[in-house]
Amino acid sequence: MTDPRPHLVIVGGGFAGLWATRALADAPLRITVIDRHNHHLFQPLLYQVATAGLSAPDIAAPLRHILRRQKNVEVRLAEVASINARAKAVVLADGGALAFDYLLLATGATHAYFGHDEWAPHAPGLKTLDDALHLRRQLLLAFERAEAETDPARRAAWLNFAIVGGGPTGVELAGTLAEIARHTLKHEFRRIDPAQARVRLIEAGPRVLASFPEALSAKARGQLERLGVEVVTGTPVSGITAEGYCLGETFVPAKTVVWAAGVAASPLARSLGVPLDRAGRVPVEPDLSVPGHPNLFVAGDLAAVRTDGKPVPGVAPAAKQMGRHVAGALRAHLAGQSTPTFRYRDYGNLATIGRMAAVVDFGRLKFSGLLAWWFWLAAHVFFLIGFRNRLVVLLNWAWAYWSYQRGARIILGSDRDDLERGDGGATMSPPREPPTG
Amino acid sequence: MTDPRPHLVIVGGGFAGLWATRALADAPLRITVIDRHNHHLFQPLLYQVATAGLSAPDIAAPLRHILRRQKNVEVRLAEVASINARAKAVVLADGGALAFDYLLLATGATHAYFGHDEWAPHAPGLKTLDDALHLRRQLLLAFERAEAETDPARRAAWLNFAIVGGGPTGVELAGTLAEIARHTLKHEFRRIDPAQARVRLIEAGPRVLASFPEALSAKARGQLERLGVEVVTGTPVSGITAEGYCLGETFVPAKTVVWAAGVAASPLARSLGVPLDRAGRVPVEPDLSVPGHPNLFVAGDLAAVRTDGKPVPGVAPAAKQMGRHVAGALRAHLAGQSTPTFRYRDYGNLATIGRMAAVVDFGRLKFSGLLAWWFWLAAHVFFLIGFRNRLVVLLNWAWAYWSYQRGARIILGSDRDDLERGDGGATMSPPREPPTG
Repeated sequence: MTDPRPHLVIVGGGFAGLWATRALADAPLRITVIDRHNHHLFQPLLYQVATAGLSAPDIAAPLRHILRRQKNVEVRLAEVASINARAKAVVLADGGALAFDYLLLATGATHAYFGHDEWAPHAPGLKTLDDALHLRRQLLLAFERAEAETDPARRAAWLNFAIVGGGPTGVELAGTLAEIARHTLKHEFRRIDPAQARVRLIEAGPRVLASFPEALSAKARGQLERLGVEVVTGTPVSGITAEGYCLGETFVPAKTVVWAAGVAASPLARSLGVPLDRAGRVPVEPDLSVPGHPNLFVAGDLAAVRTDGKPVPGVAPAAKQMGRHVAGALRAHLAGQSTPTFRYRDYGNLATIGRMAAVVDFGRLKFSGLLAWWFWLAAHVFFLIGFRNRLVVLLNWAWAYWSYQRGARIILGSDRDDLERGDGGATMSPPREPPTG
Repeated sequence: MTDPRPHLVIVGGGFAGLWATRALADAPLRITVIDRHNHHLFQPLLYQVATAGLSAPDIAAPLRHILRRQKNVEVRLAEVASINARAKAVVLADGGALAFDYLLLATGATHAYFGHDEWAPHAPGLKTLDDALHLRRQLLLAFERAEAETDPARRAAWLNFAIVGGGPTGVELAGTLAEIARHTLKHEFRRIDPAQARVRLIEAGPRVLASFPEALSAKARGQLERLGVEVVTGTPVSGITAEGYCLGETFVPAKTVVWAAGVAASPLARSLGVPLDRAGRVPVEPDLSVPGHPNLFVAGDLAAVRTDGKPVPGVAPAAKQMGRHVAGALRAHLAGQSTPTFRYRDYGNLATIGRMAAVVDFGRLKFSGLLAWWFWLAAHVFFLIGFRNRLVVLLNWAWAYWSYQRGARIILGSDRDDLERGDGGATMSPPREPPTG
């Protein structure tokens, strides 16, 4: 390589990585963005893909396409295995390696089961597009299984849905699932009434949306209950199997449990060789660099940082701000200046609950209900990357709103395997109608 | 079951099965529609999903939703293992069975490799949404692999695309792939020029689009070549491996070979116990019933039938007409009348080739080029099921036309597995940049 410019490697094309890259468009750096997916994902709308309101490509855009005009950037589709901070190299899963002068690690968070990894196969989480398509498939198939089931207890278990975790993702999923059961699937089944489905949102803490003020949490709970969601707070789930879950001492038969409770930092942080916090995040310096490594930066959900003594939350606006901050710190460093301190600016907090229900917290200005929902919708469409996606998403939402229909109710994947396996093995389910002549 | 109405089982929710079901809305029958997918698929646009122009849900609609208001219909998501014509029962893959009084078998066709099943893993075909997503993934990953490859010969193999079969599907895929390579991916790669990709369409017969008049075949060939496709006719492919294909005696290194050559009838026909034609189709009576079984009907691609001595082609309009005909034959049978003879009405033939290129054959009226393309587009959007889908598809196309962009360029599925495997095993590919300090 005869290129004299220092080489910056950015691992992760999420909000932090992409905003840093864009903010360095005219910097004297050679930049390589590595991601294991070919797309940037608009994660705040991932639950809409899981609940069949949007298609996967509606909320994703190819990283190459987004960055095609930025001449100092190369995009690589690759899986990173570890970081060798001492040798200044990124080690790839395919055996290759990439030398760097500067590194930004922005690989975000994954779901965590609080030491109960055995729950994972029975309670999928929601972090990637593949997770969302898997969940969509499982939710839609549950109604199909209930329709095909003749035993009342097993049918009820198929119509029992539990969402573990009362944060924004859990609240969105619960509200939307209740709408699907009560409205979207109306008239479509002959043997079950989808409206009989039980959608339960379980939160171990005292209230849902704990990051909002108490009054808005209470509003959110009321709106969820109006949509048909049963909200359980103050009780942790103590077990999850293929057949159901334990709430305190009680076993509840339920074929569909969704995990929206815990997140843990991406395991790549461990290879940095610095102390991590309890959630596996990197406690960074005030300029977002890794302690002892002024050429290594961490941004987004992977970084543990505080502003005015309060921890910065793991939300998209914080990740974007951190990404832009790292870009500024790098420019300062290259210019021989001291690097600035990161300060999170909290512009407000919003969460959607379901059809025409949301909560908005702008500090002094707090509101909920229909107005909050319109505000949430406008903000999310505005921030979606790509002109085409915005229009398609708006059109899909207008259609969903008007018709109660959800355009992406398509079951993809290995249908055949599942159909042959059926409910716990083909040999266990008796023929519904004997082959008589 | 105390329902006194005769029970009609329709296997397959494609054009034939769905059009038969709808035409029997007020018939004194109890109808069960069985499909192994939860959706009706608009197959003529499947190549657009494979080439990232449309999302999977854009061209599919849940069968339950389409049929929700038709009170005499029940939809079942299930895999059929065989038909027991004597016992009048459909045997399901999960061990269950379903008794019928009348049966319509409309399970269509699958791809066939002319006795070379060993080619299948190296040359995927295009029949279902899962096929399309698999193909999309493979096409997009080929450019990624080429970008990551340093060996010029192996890089060329990743940029070598062959489509086997010059029928409508092969022509559509070749034309669209050439457009992607030349326009869509422009400016996005740093080490390869996607426009250098070689897209070859291989047809064993003397011309592409053999079902069209010779003059239109020649026009189609000219339009393909203008789009950058290399058209090879009169030469069969004699071998396909993971590394390339044999054209006559010559081995051509190519990492991506797509199969659009042969179709064979769904294997379910074999269980009927009647003679089948060479392609595995059921030679039916003039009323579309199975010889010797007046209560069994076959429609769509699975039926071998002639009109005026000419075989009816395996196209969507023929399947719809057959579906409606079976509905009429059943009504006649129930009324004690003799069943009518099926006659295929050929309203014309259209095929698209790529951006602004298509051919249209209405008998006396034949045209090609831009006008034919607009006609093709209008016809396909008009026939798409569902109001919402039509609008979204139109919007996606308008965007694609204006920007050369393709909105669904998202690689889904187990990215990680593929990335770790890389090109023929992780240990085989040398690190591109050594980890130096």
